[in-house]
Amino acid sequence: MKGFFKVQTPEELYKKLDRFKALAFERVNIEDSLHRVLSEPIISPINLPEFRRSTVDGFALKAKDTYGASEKNPAILRLVGEIPMGQISNIEVKEGEAVKVATGGMVPKGADAVQMVEFTECVNSYTLHAFKTLSPLENVIQIGEDVKAGERVLREGHLIRPQDIGLMAGMGKTHVHVYLQPRVGIISSGDEIASIENIPAPGEIRDINRYTISSMVKEAGGIPLFLGIAKDRFNHLMEKIEFGLKESDMVVITGGSSVGTLDLTGEVLQIFPRTEILAHGVSIRPGKPTLLADIDGKPFLGLPGHPVSAMVIFHFFGKPILKILSGLSREAILHQIKVKAKASRNIPSVSGREDYVRVKLEEKGGTLWAHPVFGKSGAISNLVQANGLIRIGINEEGLEEGEEAEVFLI
Amino acid sequence: MKGFFKVQTPEELYKKLDRFKALAFERVNIEDSLHRVLSEPIISPINLPEFRRSTVDGFALKAKDTYGASEKNPAILRLVGEIPMGQISNIEVKEGEAVKVATGGMVPKGADAVQMVEFTECVNSYTLHAFKTLSPLENVIQIGEDVKAGERVLREGHLIRPQDIGLMAGMGKTHVHVYLQPRVGIISSGDEIASIENIPAPGEIRDINRYTISSMVKEAGGIPLFLGIAKDRFNHLMEKIEFGLKESDMVVITGGSSVGTLDLTGEVLQIFPRTEILAHGVSIRPGKPTLLADIDGKPFLGLPGHPVSAMVIFHFFGKPILKILSGLSREAILHQIKVKAKASRNIPSVSGREDYVRVKLEEKGGTLWAHPVFGKSGAISNLVQANGLIRIGINEEGLEEGEEAEVFLI
Repeated sequence: MKGFFKVQTPEELYKKLDRFKALAFERVNIEDSLHRVLSEPIISPINLPEFRRSTVDGFALKAKDTYGASEKNPAILRLVGEIPMGQISNIEVKEGEAVKVATGGMVPKGADAVQMVEFTECVNSYTLHAFKTLSPLENVIQIGEDVKAGERVLREGHLIRPQDIGLMAGMGKTHVHVYLQPRVGIISSGDEIASIENIPAPGEIRDINRYTISSMVKEAGGIPLFLGIAKDRFNHLMEKIEFGLKESDMVVITGGSSVGTLDLTGEVLQIFPRTEILAHGVSIRPGKPTLLADIDGKPFLGLPGHPVSAMVIFHFFGKPILKILSGLSREAILHQIKVKAKASRNIPSVSGREDYVRVKLEEKGGTLWAHPVFGKSGAISNLVQANGLIRIGINEEGLEEGEEAEVFLI
Repeated sequence: MKGFFKVQTPEELYKKLDRFKALAFERVNIEDSLHRVLSEPIISPINLPEFRRSTVDGFALKAKDTYGASEKNPAILRLVGEIPMGQISNIEVKEGEAVKVATGGMVPKGADAVQMVEFTECVNSYTLHAFKTLSPLENVIQIGEDVKAGERVLREGHLIRPQDIGLMAGMGKTHVHVYLQPRVGIISSGDEIASIENIPAPGEIRDINRYTISSMVKEAGGIPLFLGIAKDRFNHLMEKIEFGLKESDMVVITGGSSVGTLDLTGEVLQIFPRTEILAHGVSIRPGKPTLLADIDGKPFLGLPGHPVSAMVIFHFFGKPILKILSGLSREAILHQIKVKAKASRNIPSVSGREDYVRVKLEEKGGTLWAHPVFGKSGAISNLVQANGLIRIGINEEGLEEGEEAEVFLI
């Protein structure tokens, strides 16, 4: 173990995550696919739209019949019919003719544009005045203009959003293949940790990490499985980890990585075949004592016991690992939209580690301000007052009042 | 109906949402409370921590015994014991004495500071050298320093995050009262709308809105109930709306608000007692034909039939209504964190309405750029290529290249 206990930068650690792979896939109804990750590219079997549609309520006609038309000098057209919604019509529009059509309705043969109803006047039941010059295809959406048959509309590795489900619905796709959601075994460790239902004995503290980490697993698209509280004893820890490796796709332990239990967790992991310790210690604050291992292909993450440190480390390392297991593309993992805010006062830091300071964001006069919420890392109430973590880079010594930096919303 | 058909600004419409109220509440296990809204304030029944705890691994002692200590001139202390984790100890630290303690462990009586292990050396089993001067309370978290008994830690109307669940766990709260999730009845209307399982007949189109709006309801914390496709006939529409009002907390209809079916939806609503039309038409693009009504206290929202317009309007009006029904505080609804991006090229608009242009966001050199994704409003593929909507204010005529504006992530 000793040889591994060299603190790494977050960047060094991120590079090592590439070894983990997406899980298997399953087939689900598109209604159940929201926020899941595509394990197949989506290719459209059809043209969208499948027929020429009007984008407005109005009158289908030949554009050239409106050339030169204006408010004062309307084009005069013969009203020859109406296209009922949801039906086809064999009407063919000839020179000088117009046919009534609603938004989304089929543009009849012969017509190549639609005059908006706002720019017309029905003089009588068979005469229409049109007040605007149209160009060909104006207010018409062509066959395949939205999506062409055979076009790839979504990539494998894409996180499914409402509009993606809508597009699949539009092409008649009722089911879709998505990656399985990672099951994450969660162990709380430490002789002082007590279940929250009971009144803790003197010296004991309630198990906060079980709840925060489970909730963060859910937010990242995983399924948390709580495996219980492990005492700081070799056999107890080993049994829990062994069960976790069998029943889940990733194991997270809180408290098992701090100096006190460092050697013990490390020793236990050596029991399992094909264990490789990837990191022990990362230059990030709060949260330095972080343990990352690959146990026969499954990620094992040891988090500090302090609730705040555990949450920060899970945010920066646990969530990306979960996203890799979920099949999300590297592009999507790396290119998260970041929020930037200005420090409302000087925020000191020490260079040589990435520092994440809890902040409360407030918008004032169009500027987003980050107010630091200071507190000891053992305190959880600070994290409740905060809604973001502002980043101070590894080579920076702090932020000055008014300086802008990235904020991760929490 | 005619009198109401005056287009309103989004601001005018937002003001009218205040009439809707939060639903009833229920009691849930804190593990199931993620992203729900508190219907009670959370008051801590206990102090946190409940005993004085060390924030580091080290040695508890009297701070004054370290005064003047330095690397070259250590304080020399008598090692008199160790506090095992999770246990109490009756050891009392006297002048010149030190007791070993781990992070999170109880600081014994008599001690008022903890020297970090990094700044100590155990010369032998009963002699400790300490190399740093400590001030009283250094590395000690006091009783109630995190949370005081009787303190309100969370407000009614707060959206529950992982850290909030952690704090509740820490104070032994296993269950919590939260507002009910709104059930939203969804109706698709229009004679041309076909169920997605079938191959649409010529002139028909598949029901995209059912899927996009259901997914958006889920994202906003509601429970979607699809009520079917209504034909453009009075009785058919009335039956669906009547059923929706009985079975859900809010009714959303797509397609029923455009000019073609405008009068029909309006007429149907008049059937229900205590119906008040709040808006018909809003100066926002895409999506102008929007119908909002209050039917005996329940919100009714009519959305345009175009999938893109329906999504935009649901984003700006449907989601806030859902959040009100969910009990979210006005503060939380109004003070959403907004992302800002710069237009990558000129984006034209017409003043007199708020314009939301689909954009693809890309970070380049620390700047977030918004690339417009142009397309006719009937096309859904543009919405799939986009991941944001950039806002062009009601009095602006567009954005210039490099100009910054708010972006709503989609």
